Amino acid sequence: MRTAVTNMLGIELPIFAFSHCRDVVAEVSRAGGMGVLGASGFPPEWLEEELAWIDAHVDGKPYGVDLLIPNTYEKRAVGDVDLNSLIPAEFKGFLDRECTEGNIPPLPESEAHALRAAQLAKVRMTPEQAAELLEVALSHPIALVVNALGTPPRETVSRIQQQGIRVASLVGKAEHALAQVEAGVDFVVAQGSEAGGHTGSISSMVLWPQVIDAVAPMPVLAAGGIARGSQMAAALAMGAAGVWTGSVWLGTAQSELSPVLKQRLFAARADDAVQSRAMTGKPCRMLRSEFSDMWLRPGAPKPLPMPLQTIATVEMRMRIERGGVENYMSYPVGQVVGDMTHETSVRQVVMDMLDEFVDAAHSLSALMED
Amino acid sequence: MRTAVTNMLGIELPIFAFSHCRDVVAEVSRAGGMGVLGASGFPPEWLEEELAWIDAHVDGKPYGVDLLIPNTYEKRAVGDVDLNSLIPAEFKGFLDRECTEGNIPPLPESEAHALRAAQLAKVRMTPEQAAELLEVALSHPIALVVNALGTPPRETVSRIQQQGIRVASLVGKAEHALAQVEAGVDFVVAQGSEAGGHTGSISSMVLWPQVIDAVAPMPVLAAGGIARGSQMAAALAMGAAGVWTGSVWLGTAQSELSPVLKQRLFAARADDAVQSRAMTGKPCRMLRSEFSDMWLRPGAPKPLPMPLQTIATVEMRMRIERGGVENYMSYPVGQVVGDMTHETSVRQVVMDMLDEFVDAAHSLSALMED
Repeated sequence: MRTAVTNMLGIELPIFAFSHCRDVVAEVSRAGGMGVLGASGFPPEWLEEELAWIDAHVDGKPYGVDLLIPNTYEKRAVGDVDLNSLIPAEFKGFLDRECTEGNIPPLPESEAHALRAAQLAKVRMTPEQAAELLEVALSHPIALVVNALGTPPRETVSRIQQQGIRVASLVGKAEHALAQVEAGVDFVVAQGSEAGGHTGSISSMVLWPQVIDAVAPMPVLAAGGIARGSQMAAALAMGAAGVWTGSVWLGTAQSELSPVLKQRLFAARADDAVQSRAMTGKPCRMLRSEFSDMWLRPGAPKPLPMPLQTIATVEMRMRIERGGVENYMSYPVGQVVGDMTHETSVRQVVMDMLDEFVDAAHSLSALMED
Repeated sequence: MRTAVTNMLGIELPIFAFSHCRDVVAEVSRAGGMGVLGASGFPPEWLEEELAWIDAHVDGKPYGVDLLIPNTYEKRAVGDVDLNSLIPAEFKGFLDRECTEGNIPPLPESEAHALRAAQLAKVRMTPEQAAELLEVALSHPIALVVNALGTPPRETVSRIQQQGIRVASLVGKAEHALAQVEAGVDFVVAQGSEAGGHTGSISSMVLWPQVIDAVAPMPVLAAGGIARGSQMAAALAMGAAGVWTGSVWLGTAQSELSPVLKQRLFAARADDAVQSRAMTGKPCRMLRSEFSDMWLRPGAPKPLPMPLQTIATVEMRMRIERGGVENYMSYPVGQVVGDMTHETSVRQVVMDMLDEFVDAAHSLSALMED
């Protein structure tokens, strides 16, 4: 199957898999698609290790990395202030009460300091640190850099492209897609509101054709609500050059999720993937749990703006995870979680997707003949 | 083009058009699709007049009616209490302040009483009144009754079907679709969250395949986010037997909207179609305006549950409409509003939709040959 992006990247299938898990990345690329490692916030030495592993396991197939392309104009200020001092005392009181009432155990004294520091380092990444991460990525034979947030500086985009690497960006609005064209990216990923993680409010069915029209002839990947072949057929029928998937890989044997969290995903329905500001202060679609519900309780404060919400809640989230407090566990996931009911494998997902895609495309053709 | 629903209803095109405007209904049916008059809340004599007009203008083609199929178990209680007394005084104060600050003129004294009574009659419709409306519809040569809300009683469904009329229901969740199968409907309309009017939270891309799988082999119409041929191709590729459209007809010369409101729709972007409880107390997607924004202001009360919110706000909404207060005007509309930029005609919409559908289906076929 050949589209503008399979030609551009030399891949066989227009299926892109976003994952924080190197196994998923390597396996999707080996299956003919393109694995993309979600690496923003990784410490540089960790990214180095993951990419070295992928290089050794990807059989020379192309793969990509998704990270924050540093933008010095927007990010410079973040490292300079004591952000912790900007979190209101009553907000801290709300979190403390919730932890007590939810029986969420404290962090072990011995590890607490190091854990906090590591998490905060992610949030407070400076442009220099983001640049360092990008350099690590560029020192590997990657085929694609995807910019996770905002519009990357034009010079950085060209510098990456001069190394023979393609650059893409995620967008949730047609206007944002036009800004990416200006910045010189090779293609955009139009992500509808049903997707997991940070999303806008426009659904895939409405967003994809808008973005496709806005940036034509630049290729567009369709994202948000894609986990199976009929959805892939819909995206390609609408003119997308490929599909970008994320949530579906969380349910595979290879995924990074703990068994407990995986079971919670398998039990969830589509409307359990709720858009909430609980995690980062920006609307992020995630598994509904007490952690998302607590902000809806009477008297709860409004989540703080980014990055304060992440800073304020990071310790609580570590306590939930390490304490194994199931009813508070959450994870970014899209509405397709409702179709994920049991553990599968990366290869099975790819095969099922292709089978159903072919069936869907044929049945649409058959309609035209009646 | 033949699908399960075109065969069932004897129509040429699997395009269903929901409209409150008889001209749109008749013209879509004459073009080979199926116009469906949204009639819930019409006074019986008005419905009689509209249907007689359609009968005279539809050239014998099939058309449908969308209304509340009376369910005596759920609705009996509504007429019996003084609902107005359940609206808190501070809530009324909020509306009064907003009207004053928004320069929304009062209703003319002479008409105020009659206007209020007419609007409240809609909201407080008894099962007997709903039954009367259904009887008016059944006395015309309609081909289809669509149930606007909830699950209709099985006996009423069979009685309608015994007259050779098909019955369908709108659903926003797979579980609800299964209840409709139990009630004996002929098909369901799966409506994603991007649609205008009352919607759930699950987007079309995720909802459609879930409902299609849940009720198979019963046919499913795809609704929510469909205004053009590429979206129709996506729906049919995913296995829908047809498409259900609404918002797109609001921008036609034939639509019921005032020129001012139509211009506001043409200026709106996809994310100006917001889900709000402002109109009815239930989440309803509508054009963003001061009327939806006012509930988000600091100190604003939460909208009341249905039907109190409608009762509480009906006078304000009449004042906005009759006073021509543009910045407060709203109307139920879906996210496809972002693609509606100028007035068109019903026939043009149908032709454009078909043209683009054929192109989209062919380009998907071509992909399979590479």
